[in-house]
Amino acid sequence: MGRDLSALFDPVSVAVVGASDDPAKYGHAIAAQAIRANGRRPVHLINRRGGTVLGRTAATSLSAVGEPVDLAVVSVPAAGFEDAVDEALRCGARAIVAITAGFAETGDAGRARQEAVAERVRAAGAVMVGPNCLGLADNTTDLFLASDTFTPGGVALLSQSGNLALELQLRFRPHGLGFSRFVSLGNQADVTLVDLLADCARHEGTRAIAVYAEDFGDGRAFAEAAADAGKPVVLLTAGRGDASARSAQSHTGALTTSADVVAAACRDAGVELVATPRELTVVLAASHGGRRTTGRRVAVLTDGGGHGVIAADAVETAGLTVPELREPTRERLREALWEQSAVANPVDLAGMGEQDPGSYAETVDALLAAEEVDAVLMTGYFGGYAAAESGLGGGGTALAEGERAAARLIAARHRATAKPLVVQSMYPDSPSCRTLAAAGVPVFGATEDAARALAATAPGVSRTGVTPLPSPAAPLRETGYLETRRALEAAGLAFPAAREIHDVTELLAATREFSGPYVLKALHLLHKSDAGGVALGLAGRDELVAAFREMHTRLGAPAYSVEAMADLTDGIELIVGVNRDPRFGPVAMVGLGGVLAEALHDIAFTLAPVPADRALHLLRGLRTAALLDGVRGRPPVDVEAAARAVETITAFAAAHPEIAEIEVNPLLVRPDGVLALDSRAVLA
Amino acid sequence: MGRDLSALFDPVSVAVVGASDDPAKYGHAIAAQAIRANGRRPVHLINRRGGTVLGRTAATSLSAVGEPVDLAVVSVPAAGFEDAVDEALRCGARAIVAITAGFAETGDAGRARQEAVAERVRAAGAVMVGPNCLGLADNTTDLFLASDTFTPGGVALLSQSGNLALELQLRFRPHGLGFSRFVSLGNQADVTLVDLLADCARHEGTRAIAVYAEDFGDGRAFAEAAADAGKPVVLLTAGRGDASARSAQSHTGALTTSADVVAAACRDAGVELVATPRELTVVLAASHGGRRTTGRRVAVLTDGGGHGVIAADAVETAGLTVPELREPTRERLREALWEQSAVANPVDLAGMGEQDPGSYAETVDALLAAEEVDAVLMTGYFGGYAAAESGLGGGGTALAEGERAAARLIAARHRATAKPLVVQSMYPDSPSCRTLAAAGVPVFGATEDAARALAATAPGVSRTGVTPLPSPAAPLRETGYLETRRALEAAGLAFPAAREIHDVTELLAATREFSGPYVLKALHLLHKSDAGGVALGLAGRDELVAAFREMHTRLGAPAYSVEAMADLTDGIELIVGVNRDPRFGPVAMVGLGGVLAEALHDIAFTLAPVPADRALHLLRGLRTAALLDGVRGRPPVDVEAAARAVETITAFAAAHPEIAEIEVNPLLVRPDGVLALDSRAVLA
Repeated sequence: MGRDLSALFDPVSVAVVGASDDPAKYGHAIAAQAIRANGRRPVHLINRRGGTVLGRTAATSLSAVGEPVDLAVVSVPAAGFEDAVDEALRCGARAIVAITAGFAETGDAGRARQEAVAERVRAAGAVMVGPNCLGLADNTTDLFLASDTFTPGGVALLSQSGNLALELQLRFRPHGLGFSRFVSLGNQADVTLVDLLADCARHEGTRAIAVYAEDFGDGRAFAEAAADAGKPVVLLTAGRGDASARSAQSHTGALTTSADVVAAACRDAGVELVATPRELTVVLAASHGGRRTTGRRVAVLTDGGGHGVIAADAVETAGLTVPELREPTRERLREALWEQSAVANPVDLAGMGEQDPGSYAETVDALLAAEEVDAVLMTGYFGGYAAAESGLGGGGTALAEGERAAARLIAARHRATAKPLVVQSMYPDSPSCRTLAAAGVPVFGATEDAARALAATAPGVSRTGVTPLPSPAAPLRETGYLETRRALEAAGLAFPAAREIHDVTELLAATREFSGPYVLKALHLLHKSDAGGVALGLAGRDELVAAFREMHTRLGAPAYSVEAMADLTDGIELIVGVNRDPRFGPVAMVGLGGVLAEALHDIAFTLAPVPADRALHLLRGLRTAALLDGVRGRPPVDVEAAARAVETITAFAAAHPEIAEIEVNPLLVRPDGVLALDSRAVLA
Repeated sequence: MGRDLSALFDPVSVAVVGASDDPAKYGHAIAAQAIRANGRRPVHLINRRGGTVLGRTAATSLSAVGEPVDLAVVSVPAAGFEDAVDEALRCGARAIVAITAGFAETGDAGRARQEAVAERVRAAGAVMVGPNCLGLADNTTDLFLASDTFTPGGVALLSQSGNLALELQLRFRPHGLGFSRFVSLGNQADVTLVDLLADCARHEGTRAIAVYAEDFGDGRAFAEAAADAGKPVVLLTAGRGDASARSAQSHTGALTTSADVVAAACRDAGVELVATPRELTVVLAASHGGRRTTGRRVAVLTDGGGHGVIAADAVETAGLTVPELREPTRERLREALWEQSAVANPVDLAGMGEQDPGSYAETVDALLAAEEVDAVLMTGYFGGYAAAESGLGGGGTALAEGERAAARLIAARHRATAKPLVVQSMYPDSPSCRTLAAAGVPVFGATEDAARALAATAPGVSRTGVTPLPSPAAPLRETGYLETRRALEAAGLAFPAAREIHDVTELLAATREFSGPYVLKALHLLHKSDAGGVALGLAGRDELVAAFREMHTRLGAPAYSVEAMADLTDGIELIVGVNRDPRFGPVAMVGLGGVLAEALHDIAFTLAPVPADRALHLLRGLRTAALLDGVRGRPPVDVEAAARAVETITAFAAAHPEIAEIEVNPLLVRPDGVLALDSRAVLA
């Protein structure tokens, strides 16, 4: 189950090769950190000029240390990198942390160099992080091999950017979040993101895994490892837009995977995909308490309407619902609150909180107890009464003790329930809010953060897992239209009757095998309909012959296909395709098809192969899904049959790695089943 | 030009009726504020029991003051409200600030009471804010008539929520934003949001107007006033979701306008619509410097790739672009930067900033000077070197002076250009960032805030102004299908030939007037096609007769319309409708129509009437706009003719206030023009 990274995270001994007394050098900063753990394990500093580093005698080489070294940090100029690694391996190193830069990020020659080193590392039975990395740290084993210190906590951060790690550290603090481990990914020449993810999933000291990556390495393995992690995985990535893709390529040599594919893989694997360091922090703060809702129904409470309605909108924008409260809950609230309090949802204390802060606690209690509520959001002024005493602004010090008591009651009630409670406060640093935070209630200053946090505790809409790839089938040799069609037919997909013809004689023979109306398609053209190579609705033999003569004169195609025209009445045209992504493997696309496909762009992605139940979910999630149920008096179409067809097509594609792209478009879905009307495939 | 509110914002004298020595009463807080301005104008405290309030002798009544009072704050129990207002008017008050609650927000009886009072106020030539408000303040005239103080600055805040105003005050501070005026809107019985908006537009001390409103009053007048304001107007509102609409109705008696309509009015009027207090603050911070871009092209720079690519994505998510830099700019950057620096966009100093912070300044300079760049976003660590010295974290104090010098250079460069520069920093409070902020550079801690701020400085995509309503035309008496059709035809909209028929004889007569194929429609059914009351594509007379007999047997409609069937080949079906909103008046909707309309939900809204050029813009902005240009070999349709038809339909609707809803669906747009195939209207 994954590579053994114990020498990386809990080595018996450590050496810093390239340790320096020059504060401008990275080898200085890393050595200063490394020696902090001296009590736990021997730490050797190596400088080829010897002398002292940080007041310690430096060895001139690893060999000169005179005893085996378990982990070697290599922070030397690129020219000396290979020698340093080789020497470390000779000295028994089981783990290398390669700081040195100048490899794959500089081009193909650099990539070849780092691959050769990685090969030797693996041959020696060792592991290597980097090169071109900033080091790593493990707070659970007092291992400090990065230039910065990281506050201890439960989050393992695997990052391709050092400055982002610093920003996260700053953002984590107010939420009581800290780090179990930090690993700078670097170029991932040997140890990859996937290896580290799998190891952190097993790591007892890690409660959640945060990833900033531009290069996923083996994306499918990443998705599989994340789906199996058993703890929250949050991914911050870039490259959604054109600009960031350009930059990612130029600055780490990453092959940036398209945004749709990454988003699909994350949904499948249950990874929370975030866009900024702030959003990453919010999601981790929400997952900190480990609470998940079973549904998406949120009750909002405030004292003074504005915050309530703003928060209700934010909650709905985040994909959750703010339903009406049921009568028993309203009744309980009516008894506890003022006449002018609103007991709908949002609940508005309407000034009662200002007279009696205990009313906040009673309301939270009633809402957490309500069957129809999955989570509670308290928003607005709460915290302000006690804040004044702490010099944080706010007012009403006479009410401060009442508010602090309410905070203790809410904290106790929160401990006694499994439902998430999230707080937005104008005074998130107030004593009352700190009491809540200490009890595991996530507290935020911004409404949209509180709403996003609640969304992160809700069940993933499409967390479906990642279906393993099937064994490859016998590869297709040709992917002409008819070959692809035959292969898909053999896999179980239904097509209308068709005959390949080359002249009028063969055409007439075809008309004797099945009746019109007919479709005529010119073969060996990739986009047949764009080239005018498809004629539809040819009523009978005469129209077919005329169309053939016209098309043949115009296109001169070597062959044609005569097909029975499907009855399009009451049908919906879908598009089903599979593209092979270099990182994530076969990725399925389903959407509304036919001539509208590109204009509507109503498509959904998921990793292939796609079982029928997941296909059904995707189809039902399309923007235009209402069409499937029949609109304006049309009968509903057979969505289950469409889902089975998606399973057939995607399983076929997944078993044929030689196919770069395959597409059935349109897949006609009728009230009584499905029929593939056209298909195309491209070999890799 | 709007109502005269000078007595409200700069009264000659003030009286607080209901001033109290009891700190639990609002009349205490407001009196304590009011007397702060004693030097500027007389302030009288009125308490019916006399005695002293805040150490001053209180008059027992306004009449007992013995001199005229220009503005009266009324903070008495609801039972005494009318008497207090009447007495104030007798004493010469030209302005009333009505704190007292218990009116429209409690139901119809309360609404009638406040309307009667407002009527008397207006009859006396006075103005009244409230009732059910928290007061007002004008920092430009030392007028403090609310319980809180507001930091002076250039923002006029018109708010229906007191706590939101407090949160905004807290959020404004770090950005150097403050308030010119604060007005608590209350129930707007007399002075409305629109009056206040117009007055703040004229107010010299106000640079931007921030509005939190649940009830817009006359929404169209709001939009018109905002469009004419000549300064930024930012609107925070709720009621987009079901939940907030429920709450808004229950807590202020507001008739919440639907989200689509509000969004359309804001776009038309150039109002920045925001969803949270945080977003409002970001937009105001961006508009603070008064800079606008002329385009949407942003250059991003950072030192250390992660922040750059994350910011580039955020910029694109915010609707801006991050284009490649042109060669002259790259060349200049190559000369100024390291070999390993990336001179694409985002620009990555790649560690040079850590050696030489001046490289930040040189890069900003080059980017601000680049023709292909409309605005610049600097993101990441900048600020961190000097932050350490201020105890804010960060590191590298040796570089602190270099960073501070770079900040001064950047600030100077910013002053010398008109282009917006926005900064995201991990250390927004650092000395370097404060230097930038003092020079008018908006600085944010969060990437998404910086991106949102840039978007707020970009030209509004659809700011079109609000077209005035035409004079009402002679009202329609009936809005049956044929009456509506005739009225629209008279207005200039083309329909296919049609005859109303009641029996087979009339039907046959119709077939002699125009040839098939025909369409048969049953009349006096609102949704004809849903009810099976439309038969299409009846080739000739026989099919028409058969369809008539079948339909008449089934539906027994009193009348039918026989119409020439339009040639649908190469046509696109649009929907064009106008709904009369109770607040915003006629609101136009255009979208993809026909049977797909509801399923696709590809629609756009704008205030009617809609000139053809704005209609063209809306049509081009539809998600499926590509269909209009022809897809998969279809010819493009006549979009200009469609836009003219939108102008015709919406001008007609705007001139007919008696029509609640009117809809042309489908409006067939062909390569050679448009044809309205069906229409319906509903009287108000």
